[in-house]
Amino acid sequence: MSQSVTIALDVMGGDFGPAATLPGAQMALAGMGNMKFLLVGDEREITPLLGKYPKLAARSEIKHTDIIVDNNDKPSAALRKARGSSMMLAIEAVRDGHADAVVSAGNTGALMALAKMVLKPLQGVHRPALASVFPTMTGSPTVMLDLGANVLVDAENLVQFAVMGEVFARSYKGTKEPTVGLLNVGTEEKKGPDHVRYAAKILGEIDFGGNYIGFVEGNDITKGSVDVIVSDGYAGNIALKAIEGVGKMSKHFLKDALTGDPLSMLGGLLSSVGLKRFKNRVDPRRYNGGVFLGLNGICVKSHGGSDDIGTCSAIQMAARLAEKGLIEKVSADISHVMNQESLLVEQV
Amino acid sequence: MSQSVTIALDVMGGDFGPAATLPGAQMALAGMGNMKFLLVGDEREITPLLGKYPKLAARSEIKHTDIIVDNNDKPSAALRKARGSSMMLAIEAVRDGHADAVVSAGNTGALMALAKMVLKPLQGVHRPALASVFPTMTGSPTVMLDLGANVLVDAENLVQFAVMGEVFARSYKGTKEPTVGLLNVGTEEKKGPDHVRYAAKILGEIDFGGNYIGFVEGNDITKGSVDVIVSDGYAGNIALKAIEGVGKMSKHFLKDALTGDPLSMLGGLLSSVGLKRFKNRVDPRRYNGGVFLGLNGICVKSHGGSDDIGTCSAIQMAARLAEKGLIEKVSADISHVMNQESLLVEQV
Repeated sequence: MSQSVTIALDVMGGDFGPAATLPGAQMALAGMGNMKFLLVGDEREITPLLGKYPKLAARSEIKHTDIIVDNNDKPSAALRKARGSSMMLAIEAVRDGHADAVVSAGNTGALMALAKMVLKPLQGVHRPALASVFPTMTGSPTVMLDLGANVLVDAENLVQFAVMGEVFARSYKGTKEPTVGLLNVGTEEKKGPDHVRYAAKILGEIDFGGNYIGFVEGNDITKGSVDVIVSDGYAGNIALKAIEGVGKMSKHFLKDALTGDPLSMLGGLLSSVGLKRFKNRVDPRRYNGGVFLGLNGICVKSHGGSDDIGTCSAIQMAARLAEKGLIEKVSADISHVMNQESLLVEQV
Repeated sequence: MSQSVTIALDVMGGDFGPAATLPGAQMALAGMGNMKFLLVGDEREITPLLGKYPKLAARSEIKHTDIIVDNNDKPSAALRKARGSSMMLAIEAVRDGHADAVVSAGNTGALMALAKMVLKPLQGVHRPALASVFPTMTGSPTVMLDLGANVLVDAENLVQFAVMGEVFARSYKGTKEPTVGLLNVGTEEKKGPDHVRYAAKILGEIDFGGNYIGFVEGNDITKGSVDVIVSDGYAGNIALKAIEGVGKMSKHFLKDALTGDPLSMLGGLLSSVGLKRFKNRVDPRRYNGGVFLGLNGICVKSHGGSDDIGTCSAIQMAARLAEKGLIEKVSADISHVMNQESLLVEQV
């Protein structure tokens, strides 16, 4: 990293608070180097723990608050209590230029609403969208959006998601001209709902920085056949959670398979190198981090149950996107596309 | 099985034709007993092979045709060539009362269209739907529909899917009063698209044979927390394929993990009992079989790539549904519900 990136970390967010976020930050720092932290939360909890992470301490500043957004509150209730909270102050640090990105494992609904309220959508962006990355057979992660911020969208929204997704893929994966597919129920031109077919027509005609390859299906998410998959938040969220569910089931059954009888247990020990490689490849902690794209500031949601490794991934994602100038690129590409698109929308 | 069930088997369908369908039929017969077969296809291929399966031969009749629907044709092209084909004749055998259910691994689009054309929707059913079963953590499979027959649906369609799904679950799983959930992006009442929220309102008020439990999410498909999951064919198909994709990826990585180095390979051998249990639990072949619910006849789609085990599962599913009187139950429950529902639709 050439220039230092400052991460505003909601230290108190998530199921484990500072016990996961601080070691996660230390790990991210060790991996990426030139990074600074604004640690937002209760200094009475942070300061004693920080002593264990001297490298992190040396590059951190603490912003104290003892207000915490409840993980289990409904978004509406959480929002009412959000003023002055670690989540809110961390987001405001980005707005006020004290940090380049915010990372929080707190209440998802509250984070989404607060980020939108405080950071505001970028000029020209109609709907910010939630994007994340998925492991694939080829090892090259798939970027997918929207994962649930917008249930109902129109074709123009999907086109904007495609633009934001390709910028994410360029910034995160370093792909020059990412391939982009529209999630659908088949690959034939006539398949699917109107908003998806109309978006296909627009993406096929405009110049948007990515390489539109047509419709893709649910199995393409983990196939590694495309860099970016664009969906409405309805199908996207259902697919995301379906995939999480299968991951959980497989992990459960595999553990049972390798502990159920003495011979299998011994076999599991002997296979530990191979199995570790397997687990590493699909480890959801390595793919932790959902970004709200389309806002005037980088906001990364870390999974509520994240440990240090999960936190590290989310922080590194935020840092990489900040370093690559995600916001400026999204802003530029959205205006570039909206200028062309205004002509096209008439035709569909 | 008390009374004999006759299966019209499209012997020629699928990637392997008679080489998979005939041993699959023999296996299904061995497992369930009192079953007969109408083997539809090219007798020049069937007769010599049938010599290897004397028990199947003893309970089978061959209906000859040398016309086969191409697996790779688009549905429209396949339909033009379908008259007199093994697929068509097998479906017609059900219509004409010569068989109780048809099983085919042939062209999905063509099978769906032909079954609808020949068997016709049941009185009162607006949209037939594609249903299947998924493995779960608890071992009790989840029934899910629609998996792609209907991209756009309204609340009333979803209510009918719920009715057909609970009859499927009662017939297939033997559950007395199956729990039914609506697939959505969250469990709060206000979440999700209109057609899903309206359907929730109706299902919460009517008596339909199942026990409506509210919204469920993508991860519930494999959690085993609900007997039946109802969705439109858009989200349902995307979730189905997303799950298939993860299964394929996990299998690929696990194989690599247990063959990548000599020690892991040895470990894999020692763990073979446990790993077999693992594979068995999530084996897609054991969950093979998609049923078109809502038609006046049982039509089961077997996966195109099915081997004997997959074929066996699909045939046994068809036999079980026929034996339990699926059609009569769906018919009765649909009229029962539509009488109530006509009152309710006004309110939403």
